[in-house]
Amino acid sequence: MKLRSKDILGIKELSVEEITLILDTADSFLEVSTREIKKVPTLRGKSMINLFYEASTRTRTSFEIAAKRLSADTINISASTSSVVKGETLIDTAKNIEAMNPDIIVIRHSAAGAPHMLASLLKQSIINAGDGAHEHPTQALLDMMTIRSRKGRIAGLKVAIVGDISHSRVARSNIHGLTKMGARVFVAGPATMLPRDIESLGVVAYSRIDEAIRDADIVMMLRIQTEREKQNLFPSLREYATYFSLNRKNIALAREDCIVMHPGPLNRGVEISPDIADGPHSVILDQVTNGVAVRMALLYLLTGGGNS
Amino acid sequence: MKLRSKDILGIKELSVEEITLILDTADSFLEVSTREIKKVPTLRGKSMINLFYEASTRTRTSFEIAAKRLSADTINISASTSSVVKGETLIDTAKNIEAMNPDIIVIRHSAAGAPHMLASLLKQSIINAGDGAHEHPTQALLDMMTIRSRKGRIAGLKVAIVGDISHSRVARSNIHGLTKMGARVFVAGPATMLPRDIESLGVVAYSRIDEAIRDADIVMMLRIQTEREKQNLFPSLREYATYFSLNRKNIALAREDCIVMHPGPLNRGVEISPDIADGPHSVILDQVTNGVAVRMALLYLLTGGGNS
Amino acid sequence: MKLRSKDILGIKELSVEEITLILDTADSFLEVSTREIKKVPTLRGKSMINLFYEASTRTRTSFEIAAKRLSADTINISASTSSVVKGETLIDTAKNIEAMNPDIIVIRHSAAGAPHMLASLLKQSIINAGDGAHEHPTQALLDMMTIRSRKGRIAGLKVAIVGDISHSRVARSNIHGLTKMGARVFVAGPATMLPRDIESLGVVAYSRIDEAIRDADIVMMLRIQTEREKQNLFPSLREYATYFSLNRKNIALAREDCIVMHPGPLNRGVEISPDIADGPHSVILDQVTNGVAVRMALLYLLTGGGNS
Repeated sequence: MKLRSKDILGIKELSVEEITLILDTADSFLEVSTREIKKVPTLRGKSMINLFYEASTRTRTSFEIAAKRLSADTINISASTSSVVKGETLIDTAKNIEAMNPDIIVIRHSAAGAPHMLASLLKQSIINAGDGAHEHPTQALLDMMTIRSRKGRIAGLKVAIVGDISHSRVARSNIHGLTKMGARVFVAGPATMLPRDIESLGVVAYSRIDEAIRDADIVMMLRIQTEREKQNLFPSLREYATYFSLNRKNIALAREDCIVMHPGPLNRGVEISPDIADGPHSVILDQVTNGVAVRMALLYLLTGGGNS
Repeated sequence: MKLRSKDILGIKELSVEEITLILDTADSFLEVSTREIKKVPTLRGKSMINLFYEASTRTRTSFEIAAKRLSADTINISASTSSVVKGETLIDTAKNIEAMNPDIIVIRHSAAGAPHMLASLLKQSIINAGDGAHEHPTQALLDMMTIRSRKGRIAGLKVAIVGDISHSRVARSNIHGLTKMGARVFVAGPATMLPRDIESLGVVAYSRIDEAIRDADIVMMLRIQTEREKQNLFPSLREYATYFSLNRKNIALAREDCIVMHPGPLNRGVEISPDIADGPHSVILDQVTNGVAVRMALLYLLTGGGNS
Repeated sequence: MKLRSKDILGIKELSVEEITLILDTADSFLEVSTREIKKVPTLRGKSMINLFYEASTRTRTSFEIAAKRLSADTINISASTSSVVKGETLIDTAKNIEAMNPDIIVIRHSAAGAPHMLASLLKQSIINAGDGAHEHPTQALLDMMTIRSRKGRIAGLKVAIVGDISHSRVARSNIHGLTKMGARVFVAGPATMLPRDIESLGVVAYSRIDEAIRDADIVMMLRIQTEREKQNLFPSLREYATYFSLNRKNIALAREDCIVMHPGPLNRGVEISPDIADGPHSVILDQVTNGVAVRMALLYLLTGGGNS
């Protein structure tokens, strides 16, 4: 089996079979990163461009490590040092990159839909590394990989997602993926951060964290963007923490064997208390490790691996 | 045959035979970038430093891809993150880089002559990736490669170069190269952007675009630097576009089989109208593809390839 | 013999035998950088992260070149483009990097002790590339390598270190290393830049450069950070240069065969006059060349080389 599209634009576009193929492939690549020699020649002679219009460490580094472990060449382009400064359009920048014949372009952009536009114009494979508040499919895939490896399955689990649901591409991608894979998803956040029509995506929405995490197998906390404070989307970080933080007290509402997830970077003491972030339920660093494996899997599958 | 100098500082310093050697070598490297495995071991164990004092995407990326396709190691140093900040002189920075024993140093600098100074002081090969308003030899080489591959020759062609001739290192390098290779070159631009003595370089200068592009085989449009508007070198971008833009109307003056070139990044609607940039005469993206091949050829020739 | 610790945090923690092992190993790697093919497969499949919270060219580039000559993969993370911006703690950033399974993390940070904290928390090898005013061990190792190769020994030499002793991690690491290796160390600087208890480190302190460099085998000048002028640590750069610059006149006090060192970047005309920096006593560029060899040696030894 192989992927139907040349691109990874969103979880919405992936079938259950494709998600399963990616997670299975990632499981097998996980082992490479624990070897003495963490490198396989699979993608020798292929090249990947990281085209980042928003700052990032973990996602860019994760893609770069994934590519290098497969022996691909990597080239980083960040908006701050690029001809973006000179007023070139995104399409012209992309067409130029295409003309240099790389194999894969990873793009992060503040505009929702930017990766889709590139995918329709360019012959290369495009991987969406986050587009506005739309999707962040590799994050959802690494989250699903982490859930599956910890719980043995995704179907039938109760997953709570808590935080700024409106502005979170992580939430959106996970909602698409988890409901598709058969989980029941519950979201919670301040009224100003819950899209009015969120339940049309097949989730149940609550205005209080306690209702969402009760009996949850998985508690996924979202990063609150502290810049939002100035936009009056919530009164203060302190108040946000009071009502929507995951802490020692409310985690008791979730299942005893629940796992706690966070896409990072953490605002310790805001959306999550430090003892929970570092505690026995936390799988936050597993997510990071699995992120490299998921990205290796995608690079492999998009460049022709997995057929037969 | 091989290059006489250890450096590529300007087209002015290259002979017709050397330019032909570079273009022939680039033609043969063009094929590598279309392979499934786009990598040859030619420069394994060699290293190239990209020392960029001015921001750049396309040139830096093009050099980096070229080096990696030849299996060389690449290291990027940009002024913003370097000890330039700490007040070190260019010579001291260069001497330090020399002491680390790379093989090739690619430099872009706002001061005309900076690459020449390094070339005289350092044992490494220096490639000029643009120095002030002086020269941008790899751009002119990729332009000549594009012309030759489209027209089968350079000698005897009529080439029009339109825009800010005074401040353009692209114009200067192309004038040197194209006249050397036997083309007839015509330039046009606002009076404030035409050097008084430009005809001493063997070109014919006009104050109107129509005169320059009439019967042209090649129309090369220069990027207008929009910052110049503030310097009163032209009244407004709108007025510049009115008088010096290449558009559907004036392109009819050129030969029917003319090709349209631009070094990028494009100011769509200023020096070139979008329908021309994307139209059938445009070879703008071929220029980008050929840029990688020209740079592979230079890296190969400067590190000892091509002798016999 | 092999190193006792998985990390290189400071010269203070290294034994005489370990320093000797590192310098001997570096001597043997020096030859690799002069070969036609400057690359050995020793660290193929290993990866090194450059985590730089302070801007740097020479140190970052030196580590990157060292790693690439050993065939390791390198990934650069600089604070300006990282999630540091998003308010993540150093520990969380480091834990995330650890979860991606690199082999070595090189860190530069403005806080003294930052590398030690990471070393105690992470399973990877940590190399301190400069922490606040505390230590810069790879600089001291390359300095000792340079001294040993020029003088044949370190023990018994008279070494003068001149400048801002208080704020210099280079001074501190060299004092630890040189006294350990049997040299006699003399320091000099303005009263505001000499720690009160400096002699407890086994050095002799003077308030005038002449006293320190008299009969010296080695004169090591420190970079004055011109930002200090605003902090009133000295009246003016001109006055600093008058009293503490190394120049043609006072160098006559040192031994005739003395060598002059400087960690760079140079403030020409401030702490060192240009004719001395470029003169026959100067080994400043040898230091840079040896820096690559020392870092190759450390990467080799920390990843298991040198045992038996």
